[in-house]
Amino acid sequence: MSRIDDLIRTTGEWLRGDGPMSDVVVSSRIRLARNLAGRKFLSRADEQEREDICRLLSEQISRTPLGERSFIVDMEEAEELDRLALVERHLISRQHADAHGSRAAFIGADETWALMINEEDHLRIQVLRSGAQLDVLWEQINEIDDVLERRVDYAFDPRYGYLTACPTNVGTGIRVSIMLHLPGLKLTQEIEKVARAAKDMRLAVRGLYGEGTDAVGDLFQISNQVTLGQSERDIVREFVDVVIPNIVEYELAARRMLATERSTMLDDKVWRAYGLLENARAVSSEETLYLLSHLRLGVCMGRLPSTDMRTVNELMLMTQPAHLQKLHGSAMSVEQRNQFRAQYLRRRLASDN
Amino acid sequence: MSRIDDLIRTTGEWLRGDGPMSDVVVSSRIRLARNLAGRKFLSRADEQEREDICRLLSEQISRTPLGERSFIVDMEEAEELDRLALVERHLISRQHADAHGSRAAFIGADETWALMINEEDHLRIQVLRSGAQLDVLWEQINEIDDVLERRVDYAFDPRYGYLTACPTNVGTGIRVSIMLHLPGLKLTQEIEKVARAAKDMRLAVRGLYGEGTDAVGDLFQISNQVTLGQSERDIVREFVDVVIPNIVEYELAARRMLATERSTMLDDKVWRAYGLLENARAVSSEETLYLLSHLRLGVCMGRLPSTDMRTVNELMLMTQPAHLQKLHGSAMSVEQRNQFRAQYLRRRLASDN
Repeated sequence: MSRIDDLIRTTGEWLRGDGPMSDVVVSSRIRLARNLAGRKFLSRADEQEREDICRLLSEQISRTPLGERSFIVDMEEAEELDRLALVERHLISRQHADAHGSRAAFIGADETWALMINEEDHLRIQVLRSGAQLDVLWEQINEIDDVLERRVDYAFDPRYGYLTACPTNVGTGIRVSIMLHLPGLKLTQEIEKVARAAKDMRLAVRGLYGEGTDAVGDLFQISNQVTLGQSERDIVREFVDVVIPNIVEYELAARRMLATERSTMLDDKVWRAYGLLENARAVSSEETLYLLSHLRLGVCMGRLPSTDMRTVNELMLMTQPAHLQKLHGSAMSVEQRNQFRAQYLRRRLASDN
Repeated sequence: MSRIDDLIRTTGEWLRGDGPMSDVVVSSRIRLARNLAGRKFLSRADEQEREDICRLLSEQISRTPLGERSFIVDMEEAEELDRLALVERHLISRQHADAHGSRAAFIGADETWALMINEEDHLRIQVLRSGAQLDVLWEQINEIDDVLERRVDYAFDPRYGYLTACPTNVGTGIRVSIMLHLPGLKLTQEIEKVARAAKDMRLAVRGLYGEGTDAVGDLFQISNQVTLGQSERDIVREFVDVVIPNIVEYELAARRMLATERSTMLDDKVWRAYGLLENARAVSSEETLYLLSHLRLGVCMGRLPSTDMRTVNELMLMTQPAHLQKLHGSAMSVEQRNQFRAQYLRRRLASDN
């Protein structure tokens, strides 16, 4: 049994649903992009250089206290289902899972942090937690960064800051992002307004699995786009003081409106979702997320007394393709997955009654 | 409390669901078109003549044994909800409910027969029963026709037969129709093939409420189009010996195929319908019929042990707009109806568990 198999049995920190404002802010995340001084960027490195970088970084990290509190995954050796399960848990990126060549990931045992070696940059450090916890994450990622900086020499330019493979990351190399559940704004058809406001603030708005994915299940990722010319601290502060409170208030206002003026429509959405999840015999992961989104809204608003938030969050993760196949114990076709998913949902929702 | 209010509390003969082959043949119906000799067709009659015809026929019918076994509804006086409820029970036509001027209906107390005065013709006699019972209906309608013919003088031409307002009814004036529930053929996408075969046999294929209505809830009406040059007995025999056995066999073959080769899809349809009906907070009559159709299929095929056919048939009728408003005790807006319908469905399906 691998360490990844152990992870699968649990929900993961970011979906625990007990962080601050987790009715709206599902999770918060910060990542830093770092590259080794005197080494080629990966886009120009050959396989030997990739291997050297991977070995060097793995060794150095293993010697820090971080090594003890984590396990390493050799991404070249790892099975596809394991790699995808890590993507579904937001511990590594899809690019990192799908890439080829020497690469690795250190996964913090408590799942609040992970290090990707040879993703787009030599090293990416990320921390993530349930709810709105950017201040905590900021301290945590600084600590990790400091620990590592004592051991490895980063590519840093006094004028530009940290040098990164992609120019959009040059400077602080920081990306701050929050995952938002916005079913209220979706139902009141105000989501576009919020998306436009976010873009005006030079924030990127994406779906559940980052760049190029649609917003499934009313889950949206909002992140900073600019890293040059703004301090890391300023970027975090903007999220904590402006972005999060504003969007949370928009969403809660939409929910209040639904509860007072469109309560039948609201309950209809919530209970239909429940009825389908509890009775379907085949259901895709996309439809499941769509339905679980309405269930989550119902639970947040106290309109579905029989189900709790923890269950909904767990189902959101466990019904994803890789988790489902790990739970099942073997790979399945899409059709088999859809049946097994429906069976799993029925069992879980029935036992909660 | 009117006689119509009494009817509303029950299911009606044709939806009782206990007739032969009622898994597929929901109900059978025969109607005869008759006009009084020496009177103008209604299209050319003025209101005075309509009144005379209505009074004359009402009086004559009342004096036969039919008068004792029925109640009369003055359609000009009847409230709209009552008229529509009779349409929903298939006891009168929508045209008869919506028309203006003197007109009436005799409703057999057992709901197996009804007489419409001043619909398109001076008199329309109809008999209807649950399942495939055309032989029984044929005897019954002959008896009624004979009883009436002793009292009134029909417009009859030795060469053409019974004269009727619309040329398509001239001759025997008979229309034989069966209401079919064909969810299997719909799911296997063979319904068009059957509809074409029926049309080749010069049969008309329509939706639930006759001419110009779409097939809602996989319910199809098939009826003869030609009345001239074929004896009434031949028309009935063709339905009994050819049309009904063939279509029933097609539908049952489709259902067998679904059960053996696509059982997950079948159960998924059935249980999703159940889940929505049991949980929705607002539902239109059209969606309800669509969902009840899948429920009915599940009950027929033994895949939904918690629900019985009687309940499904009853829900199909009671959730129609006029019945629903009669049950509620007052007129409701569409929105109110959709909520009350969902509430009624939840209560009924929950109590059946």
